[in-house]
Amino acid sequence: MNILDIISKKRDKMELSKEEIDYFVNGYTNNEITDYQAAALIMAIYLNGMTSKEITYLSLAMAYSGEVLDLTKLGENVVDKHSTGGIGDKITLILMPIIAALGIPVAKMSGKGLGFTGGTVDKLESIPGYNTQISVDEFIENVDKIGISLIGQTLNLAPADKKIYALRDSISCVENIPLIASSIMSKKIASGANKLVLEVTVGNGAFMKNIEDAKKLSETMINIGTLAGKETVCVLTNMDEPLGYSIGNSLEVIEAAEALQGDMEDDVKQVVLELGSYMIKLAGHGDNIEENKSKILDCIDSGKAYIKFLELIENQGGDVSYINDVSKFENAKYVVPVLSEKSGYIKSIDAEKLGKISCNLGAGRVKKEDVIDNQVGLIINKKIGDKIEENDAIGIIHANDEIKLKNAIDEFKQAFNICEEYVEKPNVILGIMA
Amino acid sequence: MNILDIISKKRDKMELSKEEIDYFVNGYTNNEITDYQAAALIMAIYLNGMTSKEITYLSLAMAYSGEVLDLTKLGENVVDKHSTGGIGDKITLILMPIIAALGIPVAKMSGKGLGFTGGTVDKLESIPGYNTQISVDEFIENVDKIGISLIGQTLNLAPADKKIYALRDSISCVENIPLIASSIMSKKIASGANKLVLEVTVGNGAFMKNIEDAKKLSETMINIGTLAGKETVCVLTNMDEPLGYSIGNSLEVIEAAEALQGDMEDDVKQVVLELGSYMIKLAGHGDNIEENKSKILDCIDSGKAYIKFLELIENQGGDVSYINDVSKFENAKYVVPVLSEKSGYIKSIDAEKLGKISCNLGAGRVKKEDVIDNQVGLIINKKIGDKIEENDAIGIIHANDEIKLKNAIDEFKQAFNICEEYVEKPNVILGIMA
Repeated sequence: MNILDIISKKRDKMELSKEEIDYFVNGYTNNEITDYQAAALIMAIYLNGMTSKEITYLSLAMAYSGEVLDLTKLGENVVDKHSTGGIGDKITLILMPIIAALGIPVAKMSGKGLGFTGGTVDKLESIPGYNTQISVDEFIENVDKIGISLIGQTLNLAPADKKIYALRDSISCVENIPLIASSIMSKKIASGANKLVLEVTVGNGAFMKNIEDAKKLSETMINIGTLAGKETVCVLTNMDEPLGYSIGNSLEVIEAAEALQGDMEDDVKQVVLELGSYMIKLAGHGDNIEENKSKILDCIDSGKAYIKFLELIENQGGDVSYINDVSKFENAKYVVPVLSEKSGYIKSIDAEKLGKISCNLGAGRVKKEDVIDNQVGLIINKKIGDKIEENDAIGIIHANDEIKLKNAIDEFKQAFNICEEYVEKPNVILGIMA
Repeated sequence: MNILDIISKKRDKMELSKEEIDYFVNGYTNNEITDYQAAALIMAIYLNGMTSKEITYLSLAMAYSGEVLDLTKLGENVVDKHSTGGIGDKITLILMPIIAALGIPVAKMSGKGLGFTGGTVDKLESIPGYNTQISVDEFIENVDKIGISLIGQTLNLAPADKKIYALRDSISCVENIPLIASSIMSKKIASGANKLVLEVTVGNGAFMKNIEDAKKLSETMINIGTLAGKETVCVLTNMDEPLGYSIGNSLEVIEAAEALQGDMEDDVKQVVLELGSYMIKLAGHGDNIEENKSKILDCIDSGKAYIKFLELIENQGGDVSYINDVSKFENAKYVVPVLSEKSGYIKSIDAEKLGKISCNLGAGRVKKEDVIDNQVGLIINKKIGDKIEENDAIGIIHANDEIKLKNAIDEFKQAFNICEEYVEKPNVILGIMA
């Protein structure tokens, strides 16, 4: 077997075998196959596509290119949750304590944010003392002890995926469904769960800009899951506006704390209920989705979910006094409302632009090495369909730098399209695929 | 401008501008664009194609990436000849002295052979003393003085083409008409002639395996020529069997010497007449092709062509006594006839296989660094349509290594397909495109 023949096959639209895909992934990870040969193959894959089998072999080969977590000791059905990324996405912080409070083990590794979407690890790290970098043994022990642990990627999970992703980024091959699907699934397979609920976000603030692509991506990931023996459900959600009312690290932790105490934005609640009820189902704790939603609401109302959140934070070294009194989170230097210049209804919001404003304020990383500013970010007062009067605050900017603040104000206004006619609120849940 | 946008455009089947193609070629030649980015772009070009304009811009950018020869001091119309490669192709050795003897200046740089096709430079270097590595000034002086000089590529012609060709070779992107056409034309543009006669070979011993591809390649090169201001004629020739009776360096020099003294194989003669008459036409020495053919035959019959050949060799330091008495060329250690195992007609010959046998005997290079053995090679006694009796010699192997000889004998036999029915001789000239 040699890489030239493998490139030729894909170039000529033929199906690669498991052995050929393994040969490529292993050879590239071990630096035996050059970047330029990998680049030629990736471009051929981008343009000629891959069959379900090929995509699955690629996912498995990337998953097994590094350490693979074994979570079977936690139970027969271990369910994981993943989102393809959104703006203001604090769902993991809210949903996972609920799931754990319902008696389902939660062992979740999350990534750092890069670009305009934030990372759960960065949000957790804005809680003083919270340690995301613990060993795998301690991670499993935590789940055994209190039913939940949320940490960063301390293991060398799917190194082939990291290398191929970096290459794709430098050869204009990021936006491709087979490659996106296999990248996500390789990490999920390596993370050790055997049941997966995937939130596939759709809209201007997401990778998938339209519902057709989101359906294709979902179908592809479900196929991989089936062939890899991991039952997978995809929940398609609207990302034409940010999720909830906050964007930024400690701002989102505050929103999560409030949500777990019952004060939850409607769009966040819909996503939490939908993803959560399918997680409960896949975990074998109830097949009726509507009943599962009630269980979740009860779990919040009873205070059990919030208590589990505090328990998680305390167990991982975090200072819960910040959660119990969120005013302890120090404000950014500038907290400035942005006023609407006209009256009307919010017709559309450029979610990606808001993500970029927040990132530029310091809440996210432009480069991997950038240091995050936990305090900065945005508060969104008005969502699509909301009525607004002239000089009402559309939102609030939290900034630590005057020039960045000034830029942010102008761009923030541009992100909101206000019209005179009544606008309907968009659907949050766009579909379920399994 | 940046390379990611250029890759994305070609990935999405859009036309690249002259500026974008220049940016890529210059950036890659200067190592500012990485091999993996170039590889992704080349694969996208391979799969999505290029317009005539793009191919011309690519040819020109590669031509002007290094030195560009100026041959205008030699005359208003300077005509060059090129072949897309064949087995036993000694046409340059025979044709160029004829053209020079007809008073048309010949200033030709040739390449070394790589793989199963031989290089004119290697053939010339098998003549003791012949110097292919002279300066450009001396090269032009030679043409001024005796009307002809044949040398190796002493200038840094089209370095971008060299770099891109090497990359294509290592990412399975060699067999692609836009890339082949621009590679050939970039070297021809840099070589300084303003009129081009291109022999496009077709068949199992050529790059182009069928007439349709050969026509497409010809059309593409003619388009480039037109847009680049170089009048171009393509002569499509059959390469389903070797050209002439010899394959190997000194063996082909011997055949060339005999041909110029009037003893020319029929297929060689047809190619020489066709290419030559179009060269005469493009040089402005006569529009009537049939008359031009007569001029060529007269030039050979009168001995003028052979004298010009001797003059060329002597002027470039070669020992003409080897040409006047070809028995002076030392034979290889083993000169062994290969006998036919049955009677019949030669139905087909695997020309590429014969090229590989000769290369493996040492007549060609597998790797760039390999040293050529001038003595070894093959003599072909029977061509397609010839009758053969059992135990007649199909050909003769010239070898310097016993094991290689043994392998060559078996493979030589396999290269000839003998049948009982009468077989027509194939056409040599398959078409003219201008």
